[in-house]
Order: sequence, then structure tokens, then C-alpha cells
Amino acid sequence: MNYMLKDENAIYYECGYSCDNALYLRLGSEAFFMTDSRYTLDAKENVKGAEVIINGDLYGEMLKLLKSHKVKKVVFDPKEWTVDGFGKVSEKSKVVFKAVLDFSHKKRIVKSDEELIILAKAAKLGAKAFKNFAKAINKKGFGEDEYSLTHMAKGILGDYGKFELSFDPIVAINKNAARPHALPTETKLEKGDLLLVDAGLKYKRYCSDRTRTVHAEKGFVFETAQSFSKKKIQKAYDTVLKAHDNAINKARSGMKAKKVDALTRDIVEKAGFGEYYIHSTGHGVGLDIHEMPYISTKSDTIIEDGMVYTIEPGIYIPEEFGIRIEDMVAMVDGKAKVL
Amino acid sequence: MNYMLKDENAIYYECGYSCDNALYLRLGSEAFFMTDSRYTLDAKENVKGAEVIINGDLYGEMLKLLKSHKVKKVVFDPKEWTVDGFGKVSEKSKVVFKAVLDFSHKKRIVKSDEELIILAKAAKLGAKAFKNFAKAINKKGFGEDEYSLTHMAKGILGDYGKFELSFDPIVAINKNAARPHALPTETKLEKGDLLLVDAGLKYKRYCSDRTRTVHAEKGFVFETAQSFSKKKIQKAYDTVLKAHDNAINKARSGMKAKKVDALTRDIVEKAGFGEYYIHSTGHGVGLDIHEMPYISTKSDTIIEDGMVYTIEPGIYIPEEFGIRIEDMVAMVDGKAKVL
Repeated sequence: MNYMLKDENAIYYECGYSCDNALYLRLGSEAFFMTDSRYTLDAKENVKGAEVIINGDLYGEMLKLLKSHKVKKVVFDPKEWTVDGFGKVSEKSKVVFKAVLDFSHKKRIVKSDEELIILAKAAKLGAKAFKNFAKAINKKGFGEDEYSLTHMAKGILGDYGKFELSFDPIVAINKNAARPHALPTETKLEKGDLLLVDAGLKYKRYCSDRTRTVHAEKGFVFETAQSFSKKKIQKAYDTVLKAHDNAINKARSGMKAKKVDALTRDIVEKAGFGEYYIHSTGHGVGLDIHEMPYISTKSDTIIEDGMVYTIEPGIYIPEEFGIRIEDMVAMVDGKAKVL
Repeated sequence: MNYMLKDENAIYYECGYSCDNALYLRLGSEAFFMTDSRYTLDAKENVKGAEVIINGDLYGEMLKLLKSHKVKKVVFDPKEWTVDGFGKVSEKSKVVFKAVLDFSHKKRIVKSDEELIILAKAAKLGAKAFKNFAKAINKKGFGEDEYSLTHMAKGILGDYGKFELSFDPIVAINKNAARPHALPTETKLEKGDLLLVDAGLKYKRYCSDRTRTVHAEKGFVFETAQSFSKKKIQKAYDTVLKAHDNAINKARSGMKAKKVDALTRDIVEKAGFGEYYIHSTGHGVGLDIHEMPYISTKSDTIIEDGMVYTIEPGIYIPEEFGIRIEDMVAMVDGKAKVL
């Protein structure tokens, strides 16, 4: 099979190296990694199973390879390529370019044993970082605003530069937590506040992802057992936790992803919070923070052993509060194992 | 004129707001900003001069608007659009889609007075951050590795969460500085090392960009006057500084960009370091860290008042050291003014 890749993680998956200016071409058993001279040393040291070609004009090089190898057909993912980049490769060429959406993501949906080990380690490091973040907040975080707490989270998650982050951490207080993708504000953390933290780090390029919502009193920890002083918050919290646990306990290989979604959604709906659960149950995690399988109401994807995804139900009541509890699971021996 | 935009900064430039999932359509005097429900509140508060439309299917919405307004022709930048996204808008449509490379960047090449004020402020904040970074290194940076120094730089540049960064700072010691886009390593900073720092922050979404290379002895500062103990390094450093100053002193509105490039390159070549000057003299800076004008050996762009770009000659001797000195300049009254 022939395929050409542009996405950094798609390329990394094939040959163990990538950078922000690279193309990859697989032609049957042959493979080519193209980059510019800034990355010559790194590419030659790290690329496995592909010939490294240095050329400032990556698209021109791709075109040349397709011609010189008399390629008839090549697969590409139209989400990975810009109209401009694809045009440079395709306009002057007689090759048949076959568009396959999510080509690389589909290849990566079931993780290898090696990937599962790396993802488990990423999740462990993420969980440890949450512990350390709770300690840091208890020590010096009360009275600080969301900007400052976010910076604190970044330092701790990344172990001060050792790890990249999966995404910019979300640190949201009280009603700010009602926006699932909250940006930081100048709201300061006071004792007794609701605090939502959604954060992850990358270990060997693989992402972790975790959310905890807590009643931030002196000595709090990011565990799932929480008691809030407001009844309405506690009811919503208990509902989210029940939904989260239900999916983890009952998800099985062989189920459709939408069935897993229903394992959280039914519980939230029965508790009367259905309209406030405004997103899917979860998403796959790997080299990308969002990848397949998507655990949504519409997904017919069959869950299989080796898939890794998040379970993250939430309830968001505008201008009041938001709650989300998220863990990563791997399907092992037919069941969901929390990483 | 009709045009459609996908790029976040291109959209921000038009209407003063953007987010990571948005499209923008300008039809003569009418304009439309499309995003999903996560951004409803923010968009309605901040978008100026365009109707806000909330729709989870952005491409479908764009298609609908093009149809309902009976649009005949619309400009787009093929670098901004993926084959997939563009296909969704164009495949079912009879509109003529006119590809204009760098459409938004071309509009933005000459900065308004308001933009110049913001960019000057960004540069001032960037320079101040370099001062603070030098203080921090003198206090607790010696003995730390590049990872840790990079994290320190991020905190200081971003004022611990207040500002976003223009890009991940480069902090490179001795031979690591010979890679223009160096990634951090475990190399520790010792007194007397060569230290290269390339970093910038965003103020009101506009980028700053600055590089200094210093002889990191106790009490060092990120000024351009530096004395190194090795003769070869000093010779290279003096050459880079001379090239940098020459371009700043002699760049004029009306010149071609390649002439400005020659103002640095000629000096480096005459000093015998030509083969080690492996990149262009500079690039425009604005909402994007790299935009027009590009100051390269091949650029015929005419430099005009109101353009803002970097002057950043460098000499990179593999396995030995790298030197780069970078400032942002704005063309004012025909001359380059350092921001």
C-alpha cells in the first residue's frame, strides 16, 4: 500500500521521529522521510525504517519521488493536507490520490502493547502531578487567581520543563467551571470554592488526560470522594461520579461506542441533569490528545481490546458551576481498566 | 470584495475576536463569524462588525451562506484551508473560489498606528523579560539544565500566566546553540558558557521576538556588548553584531527586502563566515510570529513605512557554537526604528 503523510504525529507513528516541517511517503515496503536542513542531524539519528531526504522544497521532493517510482495510486488524509500543499503535489501529477479520512488515526485506534505501557506511564505521571498540584495549592494556592494557578499547574505537570503538556491545563473556579473549555480569569481561589482541573502531560510523545472537580478546602486532595457544602452541587457531583463509575464498570469490548456513551448519559438524564451534559462521554488518547475512538451518542465504532479512551461525563450549569470527572481507560481482556 | 477565512489570526484581524473553531465570511459590506456553542458568549461579546452565527457544522453553514447570498466569487488562501474543509464548502457549490496565497498576510503587511503601538509595547515587555531572566539566571540558573532554564524563561516571559508566548523559548548552551531551532537538552549552564536565548511574548495577541547571545559569567546581562574568552567566538560575535547594526542603520523604505538581507549577509560573508549563516536575515512579526515581509536573499518585496520585521543574522558552527542577535524594527519615516 502507498500513502503520504503530513501530520507530525502520523509521521512519528510510522518512523519514530518527526518535526514541524516534514513529509512521509510509504511505497509498499519502501519509505521516505523528507525534511529541511535544520533537522538533518536529528532526522538521521532518529528516523527508523525510512530513507531521510533533506530538501527545503518538501512538496517538490514528494512530487519527484512519486514520479521516479512511477506511483499509480497513493492514499492521503484530506484533513492533514492544506489545499496549497496538496495542490503542489497533485497538480502536476498523474497519480490517483485516494482520500481516506482519518487514515492515520484509524491505523492507531488499537494500541500496541508497547504503546499501552507508555500510555499507562503517562497516566501515572499525570495522576502524580495532580497530587503534587493539590499539595502546592494547599501550600500557596489559596488567594491566587486562575492565571497564576494555571501557570503553577503547567510547571508541576511538565515537571519544570521535563515533559511537554497534552494541552494548556484548565483551572476553573466555581461558575467558570461551567465552560467546558474555560480560559483563565482573574477569579481568585478561596477556601470552600469548587475547583475543576483538567490537565495532562506527554510521556514519550503520548498524552495523558485527567479531570478532577473538588471542594477546595484546606487539605483537599484530587480524589473522587468529595463533599460540597451546597446540596445542588453535591447532587450534581454524585451524579457525575456515578455516571463515570458506571461506564468504567460496564464498558465491554464488542460494544458500540454509543453504548458506552449511554452508560454515562442515561444516569445523568435520569437524575434530571440531561440538558447540562453538553458533550460526549470521551475520546481516544494517544499521540494526539483527541483521537479515535470517539465515545459519543452517534458513534458506531466497535470498542476493542487495546483501545484507550477517556470517560469524562460532566454537568455544566451556566453562571453557577461545572463538574467533570475524567479518567483514561484501556480495554484489556474485554473490560475497561483505569490507567 | 468577497473572501472567506479559516486561520485564527486572519479572522481576529477582521473582527477583533477568534477562537480555535471558527470561520469568517466577508461579502462586500456584510460579514459573518461562525463558531460552535462553546464560544457563543465570548463571540457575542467580542466580535465587531460581523454577525455571529452559532452552528456545530461550520462548513455547512459557510456553504449555506454562500448559497443564500447568491455569491458568484469568493477569495480564499489555499494555505489556510485543509483539502477536507475546503472540499466541504466547494464540492457542492457553483461559486468560483479564487485562490490567493497569503491573502490575509498581504493585507496585514503594513501595520496601522494602533498595531505599531501594540507591537512596540510587546517588544518592550519582551526586552524587560530578558532583563528579568538574566537576573533570575544570575540568582539561581547556573547549574540548571536547558529544560529547567526554558521553564524559567516561560514563567518570566509570560509573567506567570499573564501573557501567552510567541513560541516556545529557545535556551541553548555552547554547541547546542549551533542548531537555530535548538530543543532543550540536559546540558547544564556553567559560568563562562555561551548562552543563546530566543524568546517572545504576546501582548494583545501581537508577538514580540528577540534573541541575545551572551558570555554567561556571574553578573551577565542580555546586552549586545559581550566579551567572550575564546577568540573565534568573539570574532564571530563581533561579525554578527556588525551585520545586525548595519542592517538597522541602513535599511530604508523603498528598498527591496533582499537588499536589506544583503546588509547583513555581505558583512558575514566578508568576514569569512558566509557558509555558517544558514538562514534569512529576518521575517515580519504581527499577529503571527512569522509573517510578511520576509527578509531573504530572494525577496523582491519593497520595504515600506509601517512594516515590522526582525533583523537576526547568525553564525552557526556545528559542534562548536552558534550566535544570533535579533531585534524587531518598525519602518518609520523611511528608516528602521528598533522596537
